[in-house]
Amino acid sequence: MTIRKFPDLEDIKMAHRRIAGYIHHTPTLTSTAINWMAGCEIFFKCENFQKVGAFKARGAANAVLKLTLEERQHGVATHSSGNHAAALARAAALSGVKSYIVMPTNAPAVKKDAVREYGGEIIPCEPNQNARETTLHEVIHKTGAVFIPPFDHWDVIEGQATCALEMLHEQIEYDIIMTPVGGGGLLAGTALAVHYLSPDTRVIGGEPLGADDAFRSFKSKVLLPAEKPKTIADGLLTSLGTFNFQVIQKYVSDIFTVSEQEIIEAMRLIFERMKIVIEPSSAVPLAAILANRDVFKSKKVGCIISGGNVDLKNLPF
Amino acid sequence: MTIRKFPDLEDIKMAHRRIAGYIHHTPTLTSTAINWMAGCEIFFKCENFQKVGAFKARGAANAVLKLTLEERQHGVATHSSGNHAAALARAAALSGVKSYIVMPTNAPAVKKDAVREYGGEIIPCEPNQNARETTLHEVIHKTGAVFIPPFDHWDVIEGQATCALEMLHEQIEYDIIMTPVGGGGLLAGTALAVHYLSPDTRVIGGEPLGADDAFRSFKSKVLLPAEKPKTIADGLLTSLGTFNFQVIQKYVSDIFTVSEQEIIEAMRLIFERMKIVIEPSSAVPLAAILANRDVFKSKKVGCIISGGNVDLKNLPF
Repeated sequence: MTIRKFPDLEDIKMAHRRIAGYIHHTPTLTSTAINWMAGCEIFFKCENFQKVGAFKARGAANAVLKLTLEERQHGVATHSSGNHAAALARAAALSGVKSYIVMPTNAPAVKKDAVREYGGEIIPCEPNQNARETTLHEVIHKTGAVFIPPFDHWDVIEGQATCALEMLHEQIEYDIIMTPVGGGGLLAGTALAVHYLSPDTRVIGGEPLGADDAFRSFKSKVLLPAEKPKTIADGLLTSLGTFNFQVIQKYVSDIFTVSEQEIIEAMRLIFERMKIVIEPSSAVPLAAILANRDVFKSKKVGCIISGGNVDLKNLPF
Repeated sequence: MTIRKFPDLEDIKMAHRRIAGYIHHTPTLTSTAINWMAGCEIFFKCENFQKVGAFKARGAANAVLKLTLEERQHGVATHSSGNHAAALARAAALSGVKSYIVMPTNAPAVKKDAVREYGGEIIPCEPNQNARETTLHEVIHKTGAVFIPPFDHWDVIEGQATCALEMLHEQIEYDIIMTPVGGGGLLAGTALAVHYLSPDTRVIGGEPLGADDAFRSFKSKVLLPAEKPKTIADGLLTSLGTFNFQVIQKYVSDIFTVSEQEIIEAMRLIFERMKIVIEPSSAVPLAAILANRDVFKSKKVGCIISGGNVDLKNLPF
C-alpha cells in the first residue's frame, strides 16, 4: 500500500484548477416541496449534469492530468462496467492519451457505446471479477498503460473532493453534507474538503441496506468486503476501498442505511418534484434523510446527486 | 372582443416585477451532445423547473395580481384539466383569493390533487367542452368570480412574456427563439418581448402535425380551430386564441410542424443527454430544429422548455 498522507486543501484546490476546463461547475438546486416533506432545507448538488453524467468525470480527469509525459505515452487502463469507464475514456481522449477499458461481455450496450464514443479501446472479458483483473493485468503488461482504478486511488479521491469544494464556495452554512457510498471515492473526497473548509459541518454517507459493507466497516472499524451485494443502486455495489476507508474512518460522522423501497420512493420524489433525471444511487442520501427526520430536522443539508445514467425504459416506479 | 393595444415593453417589465416573488427565475441549460447533433447552439430555458412545473405559473400569477380589491373578494375561476388549473389555484392561494376550478370528471387524479393541494375548489363536470363552459358560467354567475382563461387573455400573455424577458437579459445574441404552440400564450408573449428587446431575433413556433391549427391559421391568415387534434403533446391540444393569433400574425416568423415520432425522439434526447424531466410538449421545438437543420445551421437558438409535468409511468420511449 502506498504510504502517502491524505491530499491537503492545497492539493484539492490545485485539482480543481487542473480539471476546471474538463468538467462542469454543476448547479445546486432546491425544492420547496421536498424541503417541506423532509422538515429541513436541502441543497442538491447536481452531478447528474456533470460531463459523462456523473461525478466520476472529476476523479478521472484529475488522475489523467497528473500523469507524467512518459506515462501518457503508454496510455491508461481500467476495468469498469459503469460511469468510471466512460469518465476515464473521455479524460484520456481530451489529453490525447490512449485508454484501454476492460469491460465484461455482459456490460450494457449503452455503456460500451459511451466508451467507444470517447475513443476508448474496449477489451472484452468474461463477466467475473477474476477475469476482469486477469485481463487488465494482461493489458497493462502488454501496453505499459497506467492503471487508474475507479475509487481506491488518491488522485481519484482528490478529484472527487472538488465537488464539495464547489459546494463550500456557495456561502451556504451547511450543517450536514451527504453523499452515497459505494467504493467511497465521493464520500472520502467530500469528507476531506469539508474537514479543511468547514470543520463544523458533519459528513454522512448513505448506503443501501443490500450493499452495506461501508456501514459495517465503519461501525466495526475493520474494512469488511461487500457480501453478495444486491441493490437497485447499481453504482453502489462495489466494496469500500482501503484509502477511502482510512479517510472515512477519520472524517465521516456516520453512515445511514436505507431499504430498496426507500431508495425508489426518494428517486420518484426527485423525478416528480425536481424534474431531474437521476440514477438510483443518487436517491440514497434523500432516502436516508426521509428515514431519519429527527437527525436532520431544521438543518441545512447538502446532498450530492452523484449521477444521472439510468435506463429510462426500466424506471422502478 | 376587448379593444386593447398589445402589452408594451413597460407592461411586460412591470409584470415581471409584479410576479417576481411568486415565480422562479429559471436557469438556461445547454448540452454539448445535442448541439453537436443539431449543428447549432441551443440554449434551453427550463420552465420545467418553474413553480407548478410549467411556464403557466407566470401568466396566472400576473392575472391574479392585477385584480382589483373588489374582484379579489369574489375569487377567480377557470376550466382546465392541465397546468393552468394548478397555476391559477396556486396564484390565487398566495394572494388570499378563492379559486374555482372546473375540471372534467376524467381529469387525472394527479392534476386534481395538485389543484386541491394549492387550495383550489374543484367543480366537477362532464368531460366535454359544452359541459365545461356551462359549468363555468354557472360558477361565475353564482360566485361573481373573475374568469381567468388559460391563454386568450392579455394579462396571461403579458405574464408568459416574462419568460423571454429573462432570456433576453442573459447577454446571448439569439438568432432564433422557439416555443411550442397550443393556445398561443407562450408564443405570443415571447414574440412581443423579442419584438421589443431584440427585433433582429426571429421567433418560430413548433407544433405537432396532429394538432396543427396554429400552423394552418398562420399560413392562411385566418384563425382556424383545431379539428380532432391528436398528439402525445397533451399541452398543445387546444385551439389558438384570438388575441394570441393577433400577436402571432404580426410578430412570429414561422411555425414548423413535427411528427409524433420526432417529438418522442427529441423528448428521449433531452431526458438522456440533459438529465431533465420534460413533458412531451416541451420537446416540440427541439424536434422542429432536428427536422429542419438547414434553417438552424450554426445559429444561436433559444428553446423554451415549457413544462415537466409528465406521467413517469407512461414515458413514450
